[in-house]
Amino acid sequence: MYIENISGPADLKKLTMEQCKDLAAEIRELLLSRASQIGGHVGSNLGMVEATIALHYVFNSPVDKFVFDVSHQSYTHKILTGRKYGFMDSARYSEVSGYTNPEESEHDLFQVGHTATSISLASGLAKARDIRGTKENIIAVIGDGSMSGGEALEGLDFSASELKSNFIVLFNDNGMSIADNHGGIYKNFHDLKNKDGNADDNMFKALGYEYIFVKDGNDVESMIEVFKKVKDTDHPVVIHMSTIKGKGYEPAEKDKESWHWRKPFNLETGELKSDFNGERYDRVMRDHLLEKMAEDSEVVTMIAAVPDSLNFTAEHRKKAGKQFVDVGIAEEHAVAMAAGLAKNGCKPVFATMSTFFQRTYDQISQELCINNCPATLLVINASVYSVNDVTHIGIFDIPMMSNIPNLVYLAPTNKQEYLAMVDWSIDQKDHPVAIRAPRNGVFYAEGDVDKDYSELNKYKVSKSGECIAVLALGDFFQMGEELVKSIEETFGITATLINPRYITGVDTELLSKLEENHDLIITLEDGVVEGGWGQKIASFYGPSDIKVMNYGLRKEFIDRYNLNEVMEKNHLRVDLIIEDVKNLKMF
Amino acid sequence: MYIENISGPADLKKLTMEQCKDLAAEIRELLLSRASQIGGHVGSNLGMVEATIALHYVFNSPVDKFVFDVSHQSYTHKILTGRKYGFMDSARYSEVSGYTNPEESEHDLFQVGHTATSISLASGLAKARDIRGTKENIIAVIGDGSMSGGEALEGLDFSASELKSNFIVLFNDNGMSIADNHGGIYKNFHDLKNKDGNADDNMFKALGYEYIFVKDGNDVESMIEVFKKVKDTDHPVVIHMSTIKGKGYEPAEKDKESWHWRKPFNLETGELKSDFNGERYDRVMRDHLLEKMAEDSEVVTMIAAVPDSLNFTAEHRKKAGKQFVDVGIAEEHAVAMAAGLAKNGCKPVFATMSTFFQRTYDQISQELCINNCPATLLVINASVYSVNDVTHIGIFDIPMMSNIPNLVYLAPTNKQEYLAMVDWSIDQKDHPVAIRAPRNGVFYAEGDVDKDYSELNKYKVSKSGECIAVLALGDFFQMGEELVKSIEETFGITATLINPRYITGVDTELLSKLEENHDLIITLEDGVVEGGWGQKIASFYGPSDIKVMNYGLRKEFIDRYNLNEVMEKNHLRVDLIIEDVKNLKMF
Repeated sequence: MYIENISGPADLKKLTMEQCKDLAAEIRELLLSRASQIGGHVGSNLGMVEATIALHYVFNSPVDKFVFDVSHQSYTHKILTGRKYGFMDSARYSEVSGYTNPEESEHDLFQVGHTATSISLASGLAKARDIRGTKENIIAVIGDGSMSGGEALEGLDFSASELKSNFIVLFNDNGMSIADNHGGIYKNFHDLKNKDGNADDNMFKALGYEYIFVKDGNDVESMIEVFKKVKDTDHPVVIHMSTIKGKGYEPAEKDKESWHWRKPFNLETGELKSDFNGERYDRVMRDHLLEKMAEDSEVVTMIAAVPDSLNFTAEHRKKAGKQFVDVGIAEEHAVAMAAGLAKNGCKPVFATMSTFFQRTYDQISQELCINNCPATLLVINASVYSVNDVTHIGIFDIPMMSNIPNLVYLAPTNKQEYLAMVDWSIDQKDHPVAIRAPRNGVFYAEGDVDKDYSELNKYKVSKSGECIAVLALGDFFQMGEELVKSIEETFGITATLINPRYITGVDTELLSKLEENHDLIITLEDGVVEGGWGQKIASFYGPSDIKVMNYGLRKEFIDRYNLNEVMEKNHLRVDLIIEDVKNLKMF
Repeated sequence: MYIENISGPADLKKLTMEQCKDLAAEIRELLLSRASQIGGHVGSNLGMVEATIALHYVFNSPVDKFVFDVSHQSYTHKILTGRKYGFMDSARYSEVSGYTNPEESEHDLFQVGHTATSISLASGLAKARDIRGTKENIIAVIGDGSMSGGEALEGLDFSASELKSNFIVLFNDNGMSIADNHGGIYKNFHDLKNKDGNADDNMFKALGYEYIFVKDGNDVESMIEVFKKVKDTDHPVVIHMSTIKGKGYEPAEKDKESWHWRKPFNLETGELKSDFNGERYDRVMRDHLLEKMAEDSEVVTMIAAVPDSLNFTAEHRKKAGKQFVDVGIAEEHAVAMAAGLAKNGCKPVFATMSTFFQRTYDQISQELCINNCPATLLVINASVYSVNDVTHIGIFDIPMMSNIPNLVYLAPTNKQEYLAMVDWSIDQKDHPVAIRAPRNGVFYAEGDVDKDYSELNKYKVSKSGECIAVLALGDFFQMGEELVKSIEETFGITATLINPRYITGVDTELLSKLEENHDLIITLEDGVVEGGWGQKIASFYGPSDIKVMNYGLRKEFIDRYNLNEVMEKNHLRVDLIIEDVKNLKMF
């Protein structure tokens, strides 16, 4: 085992070519072993093993600086830079995150989890180097999936001509995004690969880059050779290397999409150790949209490279046919295109993660909302109950989106309401509508739910009471139900329970009415409190005698958090809220 | 005069080639006449006269659909589609906006004011057409300046391969952005122009477009010919036409940057009718940054194609040398690059308009704030007192930016404080910092201002009083001073006046202390109230007896507004606030 003697890049540099190849095999085993036990990004990392060995063999990290795009291909880099324990020792898996992380190592420059960022970040490093007069190599590593992202294209364009110095883009082309690639550049990349780098029109050369093609990016020797050639270059260069996603593990090579990210699996067969077969909102909404599309040829489902947000597998995509659009990593384009679709008579439904909607603030505001285009945005994983990596947490969309004029942002509290809101949104023509997909398990409505949401900002009184009103938004509604019960038990008060439904507005009529027989309003929301929905309620009651307590998450970045701890810290637990109410000494 | 007989595209189609040329001259006169009297976008519109005549000559608007990027080149289109009164009759100038506007005409599809949107919007129109089975031509008009924008590149890439039907991109290449172009694609465009469309590597062909080059886009006949050729095409095509920015007006052809947008000018000489020579924050900050850069070689000033945001003319850009970076239309790249610059030891200051920061929410959050990179963002034109076109209003940045963790967003209230905050921000290493440039005229500090802002969220008591506290943020501070005076006069109460300075946080210690001898808190902020800063104060006091009134602008899109009306509607006037206080019947 060579890996045992590798504590950092210096140790690697002592190996022979043959030993490097053996090391690659050892690393591959570690990657698979960890992923099989705790899940993770499999395909992209398996494809980058040799290139990463070669990077550390030739360059001198951390003086020379690597920026890994999305960091989905940074695991080998982590193993080679003192963090192999996070892959060898199952007890220490959790010490190493799935993304580059400067807190783990000086070899990591940035926490990166979103796509298409590496070239721009690296161009800043390079410009600073030139200004400060140092001489290190700057290398941006980026996969083909990320290359369609606006930020990557902006960075690629800028760096080509504005940096007149050392700048190396390692373009890892495995022919895949998470699912299929979409966009004209992919034809160009394909063409380049087919012709050993000699296509008629070369996008990188068009931009001004020196262009080097490497036929087998999974060959350590080729990669070492090419890195030696470009090391200390005095101008921008793109190394276009062809690699195999999932390299070295047959199931992953065969079904690249399923193995982009994989839950724990049986190492021998590749089969998932367990899969959740109960009712899930992604599948519920997928089937619902497939039905809607079958009924109405003007409904168009859109995603941006993350079919998983709606569990739209290849089979479902095929079924939807031309009514399904995957724009690839191009979220800005997706929202603007949705505006165009709506303007010309279609009914677009664009679904992506809360964290990826962050890329589209301007398009939501300008293209969609100023123009009042009736498109539907499904905001997925917008919840403290969802992904807990700091770069992917979904607790910021309420402040971000709900303060954009004209947008109607809805928060369903159960399955029937979720479907009814989507149906209404698709068929109405008056507003851009966003819907925050619940994330706390599938709940069912007790009675009928409203079908028509066109009277904006009408909150629904779920239970009438007095003294205390609990306004529980979206998937914190169930917590609201518990809270009302506990208020009854603790204070003997029959509290009012309200399902606000509309994140983007305040039901002033209802709120004014509550003043007649309520002294305290409690708001609950599954997102950051600052700038959110509850503070609008506090502001409304500001000049009155009624008291307001806003509950939600405090504004902070939290990484790989323990849910219970976060909920406790934010008093998002019925018993803790009851304590807070007691402390008011009002009841 | 042919123009007199043109009420819509149908009338245009009756003209001969020669008459079209005469019409072009007439239109040019109208453009110049209006611009000389009320200002406007001059250069881009002068360059687009012939192509627009040709568009309407060949295609059948509004069935065929044009989307004009940024709409800075849509004036001729407006003249030809029934809105010539807005250019011929000075009494009716204000009836026609500077942007495409569906409220004005069925020939306008979208309100568009931001760059780089047309291709994506048009691709939505095209996709909807294909789904609905209609046959209209879809034409996206885009200038070279916009082409470096991520959204344009995403749209260009997507449409090249995913639309397998009629899709025409009219690429208006005048060799200029607002100022110089920046990026590798411009070398390619230049190369293509130099070689009559035959460069070695053609970016558009690389993406999969049919490519047609037009050497003289200011020749009506050539343009009519090429449009006839591509009309009803069954695949995506790019028409790359070379035009002259400012065509037909010597001053504008000579000094393209000054004539991109021009204030009212003398038609004979081109000289500005008046220019403000007093102290202005853009120039104050420009000179300050030039000084800082001269003193400290690690300070880097960045802009994104809008040098005017800091009044950085060619002369100042030259003076700043390599410490000045114009990324072009590439705001996402700018923020990510700033993160890279900061990470590698430089001190970046990126300035752009509030409305353009909307493009960078994700980069501020992910690259800058998760990584805590000490870059400075100068947020310009963030005020109700600033630009009043709906697509450019600067009242949304507080909800958008201030709820992102780790960002320190500061609101200076006068010149000394503005400079001190910038100095502190540049030299500190702990936080990403945004600073909201004041926009209500240059005010001076009465005493010393703090130099150190590292103790976060410390509000400054400007005047101690009792009963009522006025917390007046940023450039509403002066209104706060007036309000405090008026409170004294009206109620005989010496109110407390506070300069909050920190938009991103609440001074809980001070606020708690205020509870001892205050009953009412009034917050003032120059931005949308919903999700903003004042609502954080309301939320803080929610559970207490103290009353809070939040003043700012209500969440809505307002277009070409009358400032006084908007201020009145939002009670942003001292006398109206005093009335509101009286109505509380507390004092």
